[in-house]
Amino acid sequence: MSVAKSIDTTDIANEMAMIGNRARDAVKIIGQAMPDQKNKALLESAGALRLKTPELLAANEEDMGVAEKRQVAPSLLDRLKLDRNRIDAMALGLEQIARLTDPIGEVMKSWKRPNGLNISRVRVPLGVIGIIYESRPNVTADAGGLCIKSGNGAILRGGSESYYSSAAIMQCLKIGLKNAGLPEDIVQLVPTTDRAAVSEMLTMSEYIDIIVPRGGKSLIKKVQEESRIPVLAHLEGLCHTYIDGDADPDMAKEIVLNAKMRRTGICGATETLLIDCDVAPDFLPTICSALAEAGCELRGDKATQALDNRVRIATEEDWRTEYLEPVLSIRQVDGVLGAIDHINMYGSNHTDSIVTKNKAKAEQFLNGVDSAIVMHNTSTQFADGGEFGMGAEMGISTGRLHARGPVGVEQLTTFKYVVRGAGQVRP
Amino acid sequence: MSVAKSIDTTDIANEMAMIGNRARDAVKIIGQAMPDQKNKALLESAGALRLKTPELLAANEEDMGVAEKRQVAPSLLDRLKLDRNRIDAMALGLEQIARLTDPIGEVMKSWKRPNGLNISRVRVPLGVIGIIYESRPNVTADAGGLCIKSGNGAILRGGSESYYSSAAIMQCLKIGLKNAGLPEDIVQLVPTTDRAAVSEMLTMSEYIDIIVPRGGKSLIKKVQEESRIPVLAHLEGLCHTYIDGDADPDMAKEIVLNAKMRRTGICGATETLLIDCDVAPDFLPTICSALAEAGCELRGDKATQALDNRVRIATEEDWRTEYLEPVLSIRQVDGVLGAIDHINMYGSNHTDSIVTKNKAKAEQFLNGVDSAIVMHNTSTQFADGGEFGMGAEMGISTGRLHARGPVGVEQLTTFKYVVRGAGQVRP
Repeated sequence: MSVAKSIDTTDIANEMAMIGNRARDAVKIIGQAMPDQKNKALLESAGALRLKTPELLAANEEDMGVAEKRQVAPSLLDRLKLDRNRIDAMALGLEQIARLTDPIGEVMKSWKRPNGLNISRVRVPLGVIGIIYESRPNVTADAGGLCIKSGNGAILRGGSESYYSSAAIMQCLKIGLKNAGLPEDIVQLVPTTDRAAVSEMLTMSEYIDIIVPRGGKSLIKKVQEESRIPVLAHLEGLCHTYIDGDADPDMAKEIVLNAKMRRTGICGATETLLIDCDVAPDFLPTICSALAEAGCELRGDKATQALDNRVRIATEEDWRTEYLEPVLSIRQVDGVLGAIDHINMYGSNHTDSIVTKNKAKAEQFLNGVDSAIVMHNTSTQFADGGEFGMGAEMGISTGRLHARGPVGVEQLTTFKYVVRGAGQVRP
Repeated sequence: MSVAKSIDTTDIANEMAMIGNRARDAVKIIGQAMPDQKNKALLESAGALRLKTPELLAANEEDMGVAEKRQVAPSLLDRLKLDRNRIDAMALGLEQIARLTDPIGEVMKSWKRPNGLNISRVRVPLGVIGIIYESRPNVTADAGGLCIKSGNGAILRGGSESYYSSAAIMQCLKIGLKNAGLPEDIVQLVPTTDRAAVSEMLTMSEYIDIIVPRGGKSLIKKVQEESRIPVLAHLEGLCHTYIDGDADPDMAKEIVLNAKMRRTGICGATETLLIDCDVAPDFLPTICSALAEAGCELRGDKATQALDNRVRIATEEDWRTEYLEPVLSIRQVDGVLGAIDHINMYGSNHTDSIVTKNKAKAEQFLNGVDSAIVMHNTSTQFADGGEFGMGAEMGISTGRLHARGPVGVEQLTTFKYVVRGAGQVRP
């Protein structure tokens, strides 16, 4: 399997423009392609991933070798690593995307005007999507697959550490497209690890309709600052669980344990526990013990420390921190209004949950918290496109425009109005 | 009626931050307000406009006096001018907005997961909307009214020529809000005509969620270049009508005349006529005569000039020009595919129409043209929120993200996911 070449840095602007032109040509085809043809491309891509597993492992070994020499962090090495299971998971992901309902052409709404004009709002692809990501090679398959399904072109720029792995995965997507009779340029990988290519991408508004960054805070920040193209960004998941005075104590304990500890590294993990000060003395000792036994470090306000001496005093910075680790900050608040105020001040508009038996207080919380996802009596770890039944996702948008929450195939579309008349003119 | 003060330019950043803070506080209230209360504010505002007509006319006279001294263009003077009819039209506009369905709280979609979780997508306000406009004072009432209805805060920055008129209209909106028991700061007018205030607005991403510019090309361009906040922009309306070989000649003539000449200054006016070269010799002479008699200047390709010597040769620039005047460029193309290619190359993704009796060719056009609004057998002049049944509009978005086409109250909203459980935790 051949791997895309590296290019001369002086030619980056030209090369990127050529990529852009090829993408524009390709979207004219994929935007009008029939569901069966797009699904065939996805299934053939999955087949290619399985068939080419030895080549994928070899390309990944090349990346791993370079990364190990550079002594990168073990967590990065783990994200970078491909094995048979992970390759199979990518193939399964593409097969799952193929089974999703095709969003394109859906008549979202249709109505007739008194003058007889028929107006429909019809779902169409966004166009060309630029995806900038770090070192998870599987993003190449996931994001590429979501773009194919939603009739979009994709220009992918992966992290330099995963370059060979991503290029090998990209070849499998191109095999799938080709076998389905679609242009290979529907998905393209930027063939250089030069950072100048990212800056170039972010100004290519004539070729790229939207930028989706996937990665850490500093990548997202750079993209948001530099981009002249609209950005669909997932900033961070500073999620809260609030235990109300009317909560069931056992349910509260189970939910908090799951929300914090099931997986601490995902964006839907709870980072701060808020609790009604009225029930804190009753509820917190059991909850803190359960968390500590599960290996969670506890930080909290003074009132919480007074209940459990394992609790370190939290600083102002703690309320603003997405730990992504087995650390939890705990604060006692004055009922549901205190919880809403804390969340709207310190949260990241991602996912926040209330535990209570009191329906009125639940509704107050669900209305008052200004986040993409608000929950009642369940774990913030459910903040996930798959768990929502939307299939694979590009990420979870914390912005307010276009897409909010999980970004699946439907969120990668826009619409047009189709007006059908019989010769009507405007008076 | 008092008019907002002018402020020291050195204090602009502070003043704008204060405006931003007041807007943030106010949206907490308007975002949760009941439909009746918002409608009362709109109706009371309309009443205040009628009651304060003498004061509005006096404020407008002040603006007109300054504008006349500055010898501004007659078209600008006409846009600036208020009279009893125009004030009544503004009041009627607010009353019409009050009658629209309230978009907030609408459950857009709702589903149950196998694990019992109930998920709903619920419509919520966008937040604070920054509106930057030129010298039409009525935008103050229209945009303010749309924001109140959709539960948003509005920070309005009008053109300097309309400053006193806009301030007087703003006072009426504030009276309406107050009489409905809502905070007056839901709508605010930037109290200075200093251009530095616009630059400041465009960077206030902590206070403003979206910028809506309304005005000429240069304003929109400045806003799109400078803004660090997402922009919902209407670029221009370079609309096309395509007469297919299978068109009814009489219908074609009526539609073209209306699309070009009903009102030439609106964004939905057709600027370029495309016609299948096979029927041009049959159809064009009659159409050109009708247009010329209606006072339209004709520019066209050589083949068209050969059919009517009133036609001046069109330059490449003509295909790219939104005339907004009684001028039409005419080009003969090779069938529906030729029309699609021309429109996707030269158009502005606003509104384009095909006239044909052939349904298959109509569908090919409606699918192939990448515009916010595509039409069959009707006039591009119907490109209007009111004509779509959406009530008043902020403009017509030619972008692909969030809102496309007419921007009414529904387009000034976003959504949140509400997840209701019974103690579910993620396995």
